[in-house]
Amino acid sequence: MQHSIGVIGLGVMGRNLALNMASHQEEVAIYNYTRDLTDDLVAHDEGLPLHPYYDIEAFVQSLARPRKIFMMVTAGSAIDSVIESLLPHLETGDIIMDGGNSHFLDTERRFDELQRHGIEYIGVGVSGGEVGARTGPAIMPGGSKEAYEHVAPILTKIAAHVEGDPCCVYIGPKGAGHFVKMVHNGIEYADMQLIAEAYSFLRFRLGLDVTEVADIFAEWNEGELKSYLIEITADILRKTDDETGQPLIDVILDQAGQKGTGKWTSLQAIDNGIASSIITEALFARYLSAIKEERVAASAVLKGPEDLSTLERDAWVERIRQALYMGKVAAYAQGFTQYRTSSELYDWNLRLEEIALIFRGGCIIRADFLNVISEAFKNDANLSNLMLAPFFAEKVQAYQESLRHVVAEGALSGFALPSLSTSLTYYDSYRTANSNANMLQAQRDYFGAHTYARTDREGIFHTDWQ
Amino acid sequence: MQHSIGVIGLGVMGRNLALNMASHQEEVAIYNYTRDLTDDLVAHDEGLPLHPYYDIEAFVQSLARPRKIFMMVTAGSAIDSVIESLLPHLETGDIIMDGGNSHFLDTERRFDELQRHGIEYIGVGVSGGEVGARTGPAIMPGGSKEAYEHVAPILTKIAAHVEGDPCCVYIGPKGAGHFVKMVHNGIEYADMQLIAEAYSFLRFRLGLDVTEVADIFAEWNEGELKSYLIEITADILRKTDDETGQPLIDVILDQAGQKGTGKWTSLQAIDNGIASSIITEALFARYLSAIKEERVAASAVLKGPEDLSTLERDAWVERIRQALYMGKVAAYAQGFTQYRTSSELYDWNLRLEEIALIFRGGCIIRADFLNVISEAFKNDANLSNLMLAPFFAEKVQAYQESLRHVVAEGALSGFALPSLSTSLTYYDSYRTANSNANMLQAQRDYFGAHTYARTDREGIFHTDWQ
Repeated sequence: MQHSIGVIGLGVMGRNLALNMASHQEEVAIYNYTRDLTDDLVAHDEGLPLHPYYDIEAFVQSLARPRKIFMMVTAGSAIDSVIESLLPHLETGDIIMDGGNSHFLDTERRFDELQRHGIEYIGVGVSGGEVGARTGPAIMPGGSKEAYEHVAPILTKIAAHVEGDPCCVYIGPKGAGHFVKMVHNGIEYADMQLIAEAYSFLRFRLGLDVTEVADIFAEWNEGELKSYLIEITADILRKTDDETGQPLIDVILDQAGQKGTGKWTSLQAIDNGIASSIITEALFARYLSAIKEERVAASAVLKGPEDLSTLERDAWVERIRQALYMGKVAAYAQGFTQYRTSSELYDWNLRLEEIALIFRGGCIIRADFLNVISEAFKNDANLSNLMLAPFFAEKVQAYQESLRHVVAEGALSGFALPSLSTSLTYYDSYRTANSNANMLQAQRDYFGAHTYARTDREGIFHTDWQ
Repeated sequence: MQHSIGVIGLGVMGRNLALNMASHQEEVAIYNYTRDLTDDLVAHDEGLPLHPYYDIEAFVQSLARPRKIFMMVTAGSAIDSVIESLLPHLETGDIIMDGGNSHFLDTERRFDELQRHGIEYIGVGVSGGEVGARTGPAIMPGGSKEAYEHVAPILTKIAAHVEGDPCCVYIGPKGAGHFVKMVHNGIEYADMQLIAEAYSFLRFRLGLDVTEVADIFAEWNEGELKSYLIEITADILRKTDDETGQPLIDVILDQAGQKGTGKWTSLQAIDNGIASSIITEALFARYLSAIKEERVAASAVLKGPEDLSTLERDAWVERIRQALYMGKVAAYAQGFTQYRTSSELYDWNLRLEEIALIFRGGCIIRADFLNVISEAFKNDANLSNLMLAPFFAEKVQAYQESLRHVVAEGALSGFALPSLSTSLTYYDSYRTANSNANMLQAQRDYFGAHTYARTDREGIFHTDWQ
């Protein structure tokens, strides 16, 4: 009997996806470039139908046609090598899937190349980390609709499910799936940074101890902020370091790493005229975290305010909760604007309503709040900005005062809140009918004769300013 | 007699540079792809030694060897076309200069290609707008030092001069000149945006009338903020619209254009781990200015605070002045960090002291303040951040309280101050010895097993959080 799907690349993500598929009654052929990972997986196959191959041709020949091959390989040139090694053994209509964090433009290039060989290519965004891969990730496939129909039965089975619906829908052509995953990760950066700012403000500005802050996050997770990232933040703050007996968070070095997808999100936004300030500030916060030595040296030279006043606990905890919620709304508004704008740019016809729905389960940013986002786009598929949806418009107006107070207090007391601050300036910039950009245009016309438009009639104008 | 230099491309910048060269006793051959601009320049040659050619070969043959050809052509494929048309007529050692806003990586590519033909290529950053081009711009040449020596006599003559020194020095190899010009433009975006924020706060939050604001900028231009951009801002605010009798600024549409160099600056910073938040917020402000219709619609839905208190005039004018100065220091700190970091990355050996000096004259960001920046790098060529130079460290600490109050007031009263706000969060982030990035690392390790480092000993750690 031929196997229903093959998995190439048996690192932690590929291994868990193969187990996930096999636990859903798929007969899974497995292959890895080096034999050790294959042997190790077979030795820990949980009694599931995994079929090891050590030769790429035998691996391919073992699959039922059209062959379905799922690559979970490090993004970059390794992907091209695997494709090259597969190509001689494939036949027209066979399907290769790339489940890694490939750049969506690489996926578009590979799609076009494989089309010329009659091979279908699906760029599959997968979010959920190692646990999600095993138990049900969010899945964002992009490629031809016809090819997707062949793999949909497997992908929807292994995906997370929320209220009976799989967190996997066809996203759009070519690189659309990887694009949606990329911006998902950018939103994740913003979400994490907003939480980190709320955490440090609670702990170090309000002066709460770490278990109090853990309790606050746990309580927030019962309400409208309910989400995976809030939940794990409470868990993290309750963890004690075995070695020192201190809270584990306090012995973790404050240098944040990154894998590139958040950076790609900012680059794509900036390159295409999209104001993605909250994701970008979150990225810059990681960059500044990296230069720890410079920060330590600067802290001895550049002083901030001293003798801070005591803030009233309960009122400020609620203010921070509201500020965090509003920051999240603004961050998701930017992310979904990036989806809408890029969908038009690349002619992808992304359905934002469905994207929000699949984010509800499996992925890192899963949250109840995504139901409301989905609802907003269901009610108005052409919604220009999430903040304008009636539910969120009401919410941000109700919460803005809290965000204003938190940002002002951060400014006055010397606590850096870059993502919360830019959430507010984004809100205020976006609702400014008449901005100060007329000054920029006047300056540009003054020094460079770049011309300007007028408010009162059509045309292009230049003034001799001197 | 053969001519000393040839200029190709006779748009407003090329035309003015040709006149500038000719007014310094150079015999200038001129050529344009279409004949009309050449004829027009000859008809308005101010009696200067310009020599028109209508054939590219004759143009090249008219030049003394090694030939010096200055292109002032729209950046992009037009540059490659001109180079291609020149190549058959050139000989080893001839020199082509590109004075446009080419991307520095394009310049590196062209440099390498022309090296293979034995032709020297110099990417020349030129700043100063149309007036500067005629009377003395700032000039940033990058290429081989030997080639530069051939053109230095001409370039230094036509450059602006400050205290007897030309605003033109050899920058570094290959694309270094265009890179320095690119980041100069990014700094210019930040500088303009900071001024626009100060202007609108004075006028619409303090409620001053436009002539009062003009007087304030004129007064600021007598002190430590003295600079070209502050000077022209005062001029702009004094200009009346002939048609309506209103201040001209009030009939200019608030949609800011851009030519791409500011965007490139942000892209290069982000791609290389540099926290360039002030330039990037200035760019985002232009992006948000472009979606005027959305802003007008949003302003009807998303309300801000009402019933604002009256602010005491003189105290707040001084606060805004100090906030603007500190914002500028932070913006220049980011720009010069981008120079330092990129110089290491590309092995350019940029001399930041000299770059600051040439910015003092001719270019758009010219300001007294650049003397102090130059001094800072003269005293410490390895200065990691401008804010740490003793002069600026003292200044930002003295002015931080004002910036804090202005940012807080903007937040509380609903006036968007994106670049001033991010100047402050940059300052506070940079001086934070122990940041909240340990929370990011804990989260990343929790959901993705990305591991973390500890504060108390070496190694890479992973926790089983659940």
